[in-house]
Amino acid sequence: MQRYFAKEKNNNQLILNNDDFYHIKTVMRMKENDRIEVVYNKILYLCTLGSSNLEEINIVKELEHNIDNRVNITLIIPLLKEQKMDLIFQKATELGVNKIIPIIMERSIINIDKNKFNKKRERWNRICKEASEQSKRIDVPIITDLKKLKDLDKLEGLKLVCSTSKDIMSVKMCLKNNDKCDRINIVIGPEGGITENEEKILVSLGFNRVTLGNRILRVETVPMVILSIINYEFME
Amino acid sequence: MQRYFAKEKNNNQLILNNDDFYHIKTVMRMKENDRIEVVYNKILYLCTLGSSNLEEINIVKELEHNIDNRVNITLIIPLLKEQKMDLIFQKATELGVNKIIPIIMERSIINIDKNKFNKKRERWNRICKEASEQSKRIDVPIITDLKKLKDLDKLEGLKLVCSTSKDIMSVKMCLKNNDKCDRINIVIGPEGGITENEEKILVSLGFNRVTLGNRILRVETVPMVILSIINYEFME
Repeated sequence: MQRYFAKEKNNNQLILNNDDFYHIKTVMRMKENDRIEVVYNKILYLCTLGSSNLEEINIVKELEHNIDNRVNITLIIPLLKEQKMDLIFQKATELGVNKIIPIIMERSIINIDKNKFNKKRERWNRICKEASEQSKRIDVPIITDLKKLKDLDKLEGLKLVCSTSKDIMSVKMCLKNNDKCDRINIVIGPEGGITENEEKILVSLGFNRVTLGNRILRVETVPMVILSIINYEFME
Repeated sequence: MQRYFAKEKNNNQLILNNDDFYHIKTVMRMKENDRIEVVYNKILYLCTLGSSNLEEINIVKELEHNIDNRVNITLIIPLLKEQKMDLIFQKATELGVNKIIPIIMERSIINIDKNKFNKKRERWNRICKEASEQSKRIDVPIITDLKKLKDLDKLEGLKLVCSTSKDIMSVKMCLKNNDKCDRINIVIGPEGGITENEEKILVSLGFNRVTLGNRILRVETVPMVILSIINYEFME
């Protein structure tokens, strides 16, 4: 069944945004009384389309949902080219990320003003919402403001930075050593890599440098790999 | 250093194809005596560009390479839309796949003739070659002819089919039970899923049905997840 995220709840009715309404009416060509799933405030509802041009979404009942993260995952990524960013936001959402922190790094695209960033964030939010609907999540990942490395001093839980330095711990060893943790933060570097100075700052903030192995991966592949691994490690 | 795959070796010289020559000359703007890495027949060579319009690739010496698969992986995938296929071929190459078998399935695009398939395969071969260069592999994954399910009767090693059936083994349990295997074959279904009949055929051919967990993943995400998992499980 098609799933949407509502923007408001009004007694026994849910209100979708215009894009979703367009999707229901024009893309899916749904009719009165057709059923959809709607999430509001992390609760999943079975709904039917009412009359009045289908804009009326009536709640039938609450539904159970069975996809739960055993760990809360925050991904910290530099600004990359649009296509790569889009792919990361879509795939990270599918793979269960909870929060994404875009960050300024020495070797990533940095000349971006607040307006331009906010426009980008709108686009990323849309991608995350659509990927959440498609993958039947009951929440949409949070995308924060653009941060600097030094802003990462208040993160809780296990902190990892994917590094290409020699003689560091494998991600496997590190996850096995922390198999009781319920919150993981992961920094991923830009194309040119994280600088030595940046790694020092991260280590001083409590980050563990880990290697994903000796494969050479494109930067946009790394989030998919690390999220797949975490899902696997914490799988029953 | 930039890496290329040679098409021929002639005594102490290697011969690249025209696309690579164009890349060296026009994209990378290299000059006489510049160094490149060239792979021929799974051997990695350090080379210098000779004179005569840079077409002369002179071998300096053999180099060691340190990326080796501990398991040999064959991915068996249905025909999907072009963009999804391209992404799968690129990412699967990065993540170390050895062979890809395109397969006809009930719910995938099937009206394709031999000519059209061969054109597609040329494109996929190009994608795999470029991804192999970028990720510093010394081999390019093999893409076979288009097969049918019943042609999968001669595969050796562990055989997995990613299934959404209820009450089946997790991929984790299955890999843990087979941690000595050196060859894994994985079938991934199309958008609409593998049919019950197809699953029956695969099981009769020795395939184990496994679940990747309860996330709902896009079909093109599944190969990246399973390859990430296998790399992780067989990581030191």
